Amino acid sequence: MATVAFIGLGIMGRPMAVNLVKAGFDVRGFSRTGRSRDAAAAQGVPIVGSLDAAVADADVVITMLPDTPDVEAVALGDGGALAGMRRGALYIDMSTIDPEGALRVHDAAARAGIGCLDAPVSGGEVASIEGTLSIMAGGTREDFDAARELFYAIGASAILVGGAGSGQVVKAANQLMVAGHLQMLAEAIVLLKAHDVDERGALAVLGAGLAGSTVLARKQNAILEQDYRPGFRVELHNKDLAIVQNAARRKGVALPATALVSQFMQALVAQGYGALDHSALYLLADELNTRRAEAMV
Amino acid sequence: MATVAFIGLGIMGRPMAVNLVKAGFDVRGFSRTGRSRDAAAAQGVPIVGSLDAAVADADVVITMLPDTPDVEAVALGDGGALAGMRRGALYIDMSTIDPEGALRVHDAAARAGIGCLDAPVSGGEVASIEGTLSIMAGGTREDFDAARELFYAIGASAILVGGAGSGQVVKAANQLMVAGHLQMLAEAIVLLKAHDVDERGALAVLGAGLAGSTVLARKQNAILEQDYRPGFRVELHNKDLAIVQNAARRKGVALPATALVSQFMQALVAQGYGALDHSALYLLADELNTRRAEAMV
Amino acid sequence: MATVAFIGLGIMGRPMAVNLVKAGFDVRGFSRTGRSRDAAAAQGVPIVGSLDAAVADADVVITMLPDTPDVEAVALGDGGALAGMRRGALYIDMSTIDPEGALRVHDAAARAGIGCLDAPVSGGEVASIEGTLSIMAGGTREDFDAARELFYAIGASAILVGGAGSGQVVKAANQLMVAGHLQMLAEAIVLLKAHDVDERGALAVLGAGLAGSTVLARKQNAILEQDYRPGFRVELHNKDLAIVQNAARRKGVALPATALVSQFMQALVAQGYGALDHSALYLLADELNTRRAEAMV
Amino acid sequence: MATVAFIGLGIMGRPMAVNLVKAGFDVRGFSRTGRSRDAAAAQGVPIVGSLDAAVADADVVITMLPDTPDVEAVALGDGGALAGMRRGALYIDMSTIDPEGALRVHDAAARAGIGCLDAPVSGGEVASIEGTLSIMAGGTREDFDAARELFYAIGASAILVGGAGSGQVVKAANQLMVAGHLQMLAEAIVLLKAHDVDERGALAVLGAGLAGSTVLARKQNAILEQDYRPGFRVELHNKDLAIVQNAARRKGVALPATALVSQFMQALVAQGYGALDHSALYLLADELNTRRAEAMV
Repeated sequence: MATVAFIGLGIMGRPMAVNLVKAGFDVRGFSRTGRSRDAAAAQGVPIVGSLDAAVADADVVITMLPDTPDVEAVALGDGGALAGMRRGALYIDMSTIDPEGALRVHDAAARAGIGCLDAPVSGGEVASIEGTLSIMAGGTREDFDAARELFYAIGASAILVGGAGSGQVVKAANQLMVAGHLQMLAEAIVLLKAHDVDERGALAVLGAGLAGSTVLARKQNAILEQDYRPGFRVELHNKDLAIVQNAARRKGVALPATALVSQFMQALVAQGYGALDHSALYLLADELNTRRAEAMV
Repeated sequence: MATVAFIGLGIMGRPMAVNLVKAGFDVRGFSRTGRSRDAAAAQGVPIVGSLDAAVADADVVITMLPDTPDVEAVALGDGGALAGMRRGALYIDMSTIDPEGALRVHDAAARAGIGCLDAPVSGGEVASIEGTLSIMAGGTREDFDAARELFYAIGASAILVGGAGSGQVVKAANQLMVAGHLQMLAEAIVLLKAHDVDERGALAVLGAGLAGSTVLARKQNAILEQDYRPGFRVELHNKDLAIVQNAARRKGVALPATALVSQFMQALVAQGYGALDHSALYLLADELNTRRAEAMV
Repeated sequence: MATVAFIGLGIMGRPMAVNLVKAGFDVRGFSRTGRSRDAAAAQGVPIVGSLDAAVADADVVITMLPDTPDVEAVALGDGGALAGMRRGALYIDMSTIDPEGALRVHDAAARAGIGCLDAPVSGGEVASIEGTLSIMAGGTREDFDAARELFYAIGASAILVGGAGSGQVVKAANQLMVAGHLQMLAEAIVLLKAHDVDERGALAVLGAGLAGSTVLARKQNAILEQDYRPGFRVELHNKDLAIVQNAARRKGVALPATALVSQFMQALVAQGYGALDHSALYLLADELNTRRAEAMV
Repeated sequence: MATVAFIGLGIMGRPMAVNLVKAGFDVRGFSRTGRSRDAAAAQGVPIVGSLDAAVADADVVITMLPDTPDVEAVALGDGGALAGMRRGALYIDMSTIDPEGALRVHDAAARAGIGCLDAPVSGGEVASIEGTLSIMAGGTREDFDAARELFYAIGASAILVGGAGSGQVVKAANQLMVAGHLQMLAEAIVLLKAHDVDERGALAVLGAGLAGSTVLARKQNAILEQDYRPGFRVELHNKDLAIVQNAARRKGVALPATALVSQFMQALVAQGYGALDHSALYLLADELNTRRAEAMV
């Protein structure tokens, strides 16, 4: 089977690399942080000592990194992954980054004669471990077909949603919808509590009807029990909403409800709640409506 | 089986009455409009000539009417349903009305020694015909238990969500969530189109992940095909969002995203789109971002 | 000079009544609360023992009351002011109420053969004491002309802005603009502080240019010194924004920025800040962006 | 008097250069576009053939350019203005750009031993011609003092609002407030029209009270007469609101009303109204509430 360089062995990347190893791929893992390398090695991922060593004769190079500048730093430039890869190989960035950054990577790959996909994922750590990620890919049909077997090893579904950058656009759309659904759920619960309605029974009814959402199904317990352990962190969702904002502005489209909800996510970060699960949007909606000690004086 | 007076034989009420007849209840239908009476009669619903004749010796009286004033006009006052019902009977309002209006009806019923439930439904015309409505009831456990058999005949689920008025509060929460989900879906599609991403593939991916919602599953075709035949009309959803607004204000809670989305629903009505399906929120989001002929000059 | 019944001797009404006495009008003051009556009497306002005694042979009846139901309770009904006034007299409501409530009062006055103006004021307690209120009146030119001399005694300006109810509509527009200007000022200061810019110098520049506003001129000190003693209370402005909301909904118009700002005013009330000056919108904007003690854990 | 290189001779820059010539400064104008050079020459501004020729022995270099990348292209880099200036000279950027861009310019100037101010202006073309601009400067007191005489020649006021970048932050705050005031004015007029209140009389009352603003005073005629000739163009204000958004995000602060209004400015651009005066926010608010021909079917 193919040789796969896997760059970025954090919470999301490590289990993906593990699943590729299990599926029989010849994996060469690399990460800038020693702890991630050690943890991956302990789970059976072969580790190499440098980016160059990882990508040199790989058939496929995958990056799974925090943000746009990280991907550009690894992929582009003289010492970057694309410069070290052989012509005809395939580069897949599975990070969530700005669609424009993805286009810069696609362009550089094309100039180097290397295939390229932007293929961000959803599903979080759990799906990464279980190998049930949902993968949304942008690029050519040919490159997508070349990645199919690999995607099967880490995801439950993989869809080619369009040309270069499209994967990141769909991921951006995903993040705006999830934020919006969390905010609406939060406001619904505020209304229910204000009227002293039993929230659990009410949410069961709501979830069964047209108001149902995956967010409601998965996040209601966290909210009702005020247990905001992540899951998906507020600060990451806030970063993603900045990507949404930029992607909208670049094309000149106005997204008013998205803009408003984005401000609330930003406020959560400002209040120091960045490390909580994004369902903490309820925390903000609740505090907006909660009498404060100092206000009673 | 019990004798049931059914008041209000419109698009929603008529199939409910039909299903009660089929289930063996002794139904007496009444409506102020002749056309509704005739249509119900044609489907086998026994019709009586007056409100008084319908409720006089009914075990249960159900109302299914457009708005709060309609329900108060039928239920309250000297010639109203509660005045004509026998002590110990049960009054169930299944309309979507203001929770405060529901409380006034509960109070009047209590003074008359009549049981009472506010029990709005979701699911629309299709679920009404199929007998698969989702019923959210407010009132006492005793009254709810007395209505169980009847609810089985018209709904797929019926849950007692709390005391008097709670059914309407949960329905209000339902309507704010649905409006919000429609708006987020609309903005997501605007973003996808602006980036020339294939929307169908993208929505398939989005629906399978954390961004999934019943709204997305049921309304995406209508939006993508610009087919806004109702379904649930903008003007009714706008009325319901006014109920949400009042229910929030009465308890002094702020619901900012709900307030914003409500303005867009209102704008649709102002633009003359009140008779379209509420998925027309996309129409507004699209027009907000569409170059106008006169602007090109 | 004319005989004037003045109903409502609170913070706003009392100084108005005093100024009418000083201008030579034959004033008969009445208030439901003994403390207001005593305070007005101490300032030289002749007090009578009942609403009926006040209005019976008055040429003009003025009401200055907190909210729509108060005005309707005093003006309408069998024992109300309009029932007790003589034909040909003039009723002026100077409270800030719902335009629809104003129309009901105008209608009742017309049926009773009594002239009527809705004439809310702006300028607050200070302008009330100084006799420099700004008066915005709705009604007929004839009734407005009949009130001119009286308006001169209590206001710096009085303008007939349109027919019945128009005064209240203009007051509603005033309240939405003031709330919006306060919110924009608040957000501007949040931005300045976040960048460690000296706010006083910056606000001096801003006030001198296109960003200038009366709100900026009058409220910046309160905000910079966090001194939120009223002035005009949050809870009253919140009530007025409910009037705006209803006035917009009744005519079917969408006012999205107004709706959003209204939610923040509502949130201030929910947080227990209702008795502060409305410039406390900055407090909310600041807290939205302030790290919380418990969040640092 | 000092030698001043003036780079950027467009609608704003040209009259500023003219006023400097009139005040006796030894001006060397340069622009990349021939038309701007010719127009400035026709008004008596001495023109030189290259950026290098302009800045080589200038005491002060001023740039007045459209956006952040333009300023960075002119100021930074090997062939840029800072590279060509002599040590001890002063660089003043009077464009409206991102505060972060301004900081990069300040840093480069400091490394080159050159003084630096970010000094954006408000007042528009009229104030530029009249020499009555309002100047908000960021930098050191020493550099500000060195620019005083020059600022007097082109502005009615110049204030040092803080350290490097502060001028741009204050300009950003200015632009968010102006956009917000325009939006509130627009919504107020929508409400007044919906209630058939005479807008001119109403706006006179509003302007005289706490709702008064410079925007109301200067823009009401344009709105009431639907005359949207700029003035200040929507597309420029939209660019500035992107600067606001970035400046807020970089410091991690949430500005919800600003975010919403920014979306409406963006929508105006999307609808093809970018070349209109920014008071066209009313156009959007009005169209949001206007029945459409096709909707009446």
